[in-house]
Amino acid sequence: MLNHAEDCIARCRALALHTEEPGFTTRTFLSPSMHAVHGDLSQWMRDSGMSVSVDAVGNLRGRYAAATADAPVFWIGSHLDTVPHAGAFDGILGVVLGVKLVQLLSGHPLPFAIEVVGFSEEEGVRFGFPFIGSLALIGQLNPAATALIAGAVRDFGLNPTDPVAMTDASLGYLEFHIEQGPVLENLGLPLGIVEAIAGQTRMQIIFEGKAGHAGTTPMNLRHDALACAAEWICEVEEHAGKTFGMVATVGKLEVHPGAPNVIPGTVKLTLDVRHQMDATRRHGAASMLDAAHRIAHRRGLSVSSAITLDQAAVPLDAQLAQALARAVERSGHAVHCMMSGAGHDAMVIARAMPAAMLFLRSPGGLSHHPEESVLVEDVASALSVGMNFLENLA
Amino acid sequence: MLNHAEDCIARCRALALHTEEPGFTTRTFLSPSMHAVHGDLSQWMRDSGMSVSVDAVGNLRGRYAAATADAPVFWIGSHLDTVPHAGAFDGILGVVLGVKLVQLLSGHPLPFAIEVVGFSEEEGVRFGFPFIGSLALIGQLNPAATALIAGAVRDFGLNPTDPVAMTDASLGYLEFHIEQGPVLENLGLPLGIVEAIAGQTRMQIIFEGKAGHAGTTPMNLRHDALACAAEWICEVEEHAGKTFGMVATVGKLEVHPGAPNVIPGTVKLTLDVRHQMDATRRHGAASMLDAAHRIAHRRGLSVSSAITLDQAAVPLDAQLAQALARAVERSGHAVHCMMSGAGHDAMVIARAMPAAMLFLRSPGGLSHHPEESVLVEDVASALSVGMNFLENLA
Repeated sequence: MLNHAEDCIARCRALALHTEEPGFTTRTFLSPSMHAVHGDLSQWMRDSGMSVSVDAVGNLRGRYAAATADAPVFWIGSHLDTVPHAGAFDGILGVVLGVKLVQLLSGHPLPFAIEVVGFSEEEGVRFGFPFIGSLALIGQLNPAATALIAGAVRDFGLNPTDPVAMTDASLGYLEFHIEQGPVLENLGLPLGIVEAIAGQTRMQIIFEGKAGHAGTTPMNLRHDALACAAEWICEVEEHAGKTFGMVATVGKLEVHPGAPNVIPGTVKLTLDVRHQMDATRRHGAASMLDAAHRIAHRRGLSVSSAITLDQAAVPLDAQLAQALARAVERSGHAVHCMMSGAGHDAMVIARAMPAAMLFLRSPGGLSHHPEESVLVEDVASALSVGMNFLENLA
Repeated sequence: MLNHAEDCIARCRALALHTEEPGFTTRTFLSPSMHAVHGDLSQWMRDSGMSVSVDAVGNLRGRYAAATADAPVFWIGSHLDTVPHAGAFDGILGVVLGVKLVQLLSGHPLPFAIEVVGFSEEEGVRFGFPFIGSLALIGQLNPAATALIAGAVRDFGLNPTDPVAMTDASLGYLEFHIEQGPVLENLGLPLGIVEAIAGQTRMQIIFEGKAGHAGTTPMNLRHDALACAAEWICEVEEHAGKTFGMVATVGKLEVHPGAPNVIPGTVKLTLDVRHQMDATRRHGAASMLDAAHRIAHRRGLSVSSAITLDQAAVPLDAQLAQALARAVERSGHAVHCMMSGAGHDAMVIARAMPAAMLFLRSPGGLSHHPEESVLVEDVASALSVGMNFLENLA
């Protein structure tokens, strides 16, 4: 399987050269460089026995026919768009692995069709609106978004009024994706089975104290917004650290007035809390907000806050996850089930059919970065698991 | 004395209308609005029996002659320039009180001359170089600074090559100034005697961790630069809080990359540490830097730092401070000795002669702000103390 894995990596690296920005990989929704990606992948899909189409939101769809005419379809996919200055694997590896699995079937039909889909849009870069490809496939792209993208669709040579949504009976969906985190590397494992996509709470919090002269205001008479925020950040970290599976991040923090010799009067910051159990996440976020009020009150500061996102967790299909686990075992690897802290197309597709995800170890935990990579052994393992999975599904 | 105090406050408020920026008080070194201030104060100085001159760096100097021709001089002064959007009292109150004290002498000569000096520059706004007026008076304005300001001096109608430095034998210097902090208000006292101007250490510190995806990086695998900085800021606050007379401030802090869903990889911040004992200050700053290294090492981050300022404390004259204390007692107030956490002209003048400072309570601790104020009772107390002080000096 190693030579097939090498072929997959080589294809991803070649496809990464199709970019809007020479020297980097930047390929947004329906950009001209997407035509080249479609061209390369379509050719390979046809060579592997698939019929190819591009739907009205720009999803590339390769269909491998079933043994019988009215058989259901099993979907394998991920996205073809990238963030600016991306790596070569986030998203597109899942499409390349799908086509490779079909290629490895060598034309032998299964009792179900396989449709490999390269979603046109997942990252939300071009229109600030993510998951356009997968939402359209399940018929849930709202009219406002459809109108928003209509010009881009026409410019790409497509007809925005053509139907997109799938019509076949579907068995399920499988997405291979790089982990984008350090967990598997840390465990020394090539693969992870995703149980759920974590829910997210995002908040903006403002600590309002009193600015003052750094030289003339004694420590006991201060209402320092940054010292207050610092104490709170330590509590946030501690709370998340002792809650299994929770992550909490203060990623953005602004200090006002922000001069070296002025006590900070105001601190504005963001809090991002994720967990695969919504109740645990919401309880955690509420406890953190309580802590902000408690600490600020003791210090004579005030707090204001706004929840900017409360996105529920999405459990993936337990039966497909079990089938994946058996395939992982048969391929000789330890089974590790995990949550995904990032959103993926599988999260959208799960609304319409059983969905599963298999993570590949991310060296250095790196993604959305030119140096993001995968190990050839891990890609080979993923291909083995994929073949095993399809054979058992059959 | 209350009517004289009211007159001082009214004069300060009237002088605050001489500004470069209508609606605010902004009056930088040798700006056109300084001419108007000189005009008003000169008139009052002459009415009070003083001879008036403006020296070659723009210091306004009013001389009240002694009983004998070759008597030494006692200086009373502060600065006439302001920060942008200033209040009506920082600096100029010390000049107004000086003239008022001479006025209260009603022409009766003392065994020493009194020279009231309104320094042209203390805040460092126009040329980024503070204390121009006082440095020139003691003959310590360096040639580079002299060259830097020569054009402005000429534009103001002065000759930059005229001599500035004082030549008389000097008994000492007294500066009245608003406290610019909340200590006196908190103690319920009108006046404070300044023992020393605190020394300052300023540092830039960079915590270098590893940026990462806020969703996919578990808490135990993070190297979060902001969480590290937060833990350290808590230690800085604790260290300063338990060291009598120390203040420590993290006033500026930048987070990179600074996105809500990205773990902070780098935090750059400033540290400002002040104390009236240099050894205590330097030991404190070193301990804080040690703590930064210790915390960062435990978390797998690195620290780099640079000391950007190491300014020694300036003790003021103990005998003059005692004389002030006796005057405060005779005026019926409790004596409170304190450090000044901010720099003042007295800090420069102390290099050349015995110098003393008397702080007036700052309501709300406010300064460098349009709402900065003084209480009329406190100004009356300061005038009583000043008269008492001069009578005893005589």
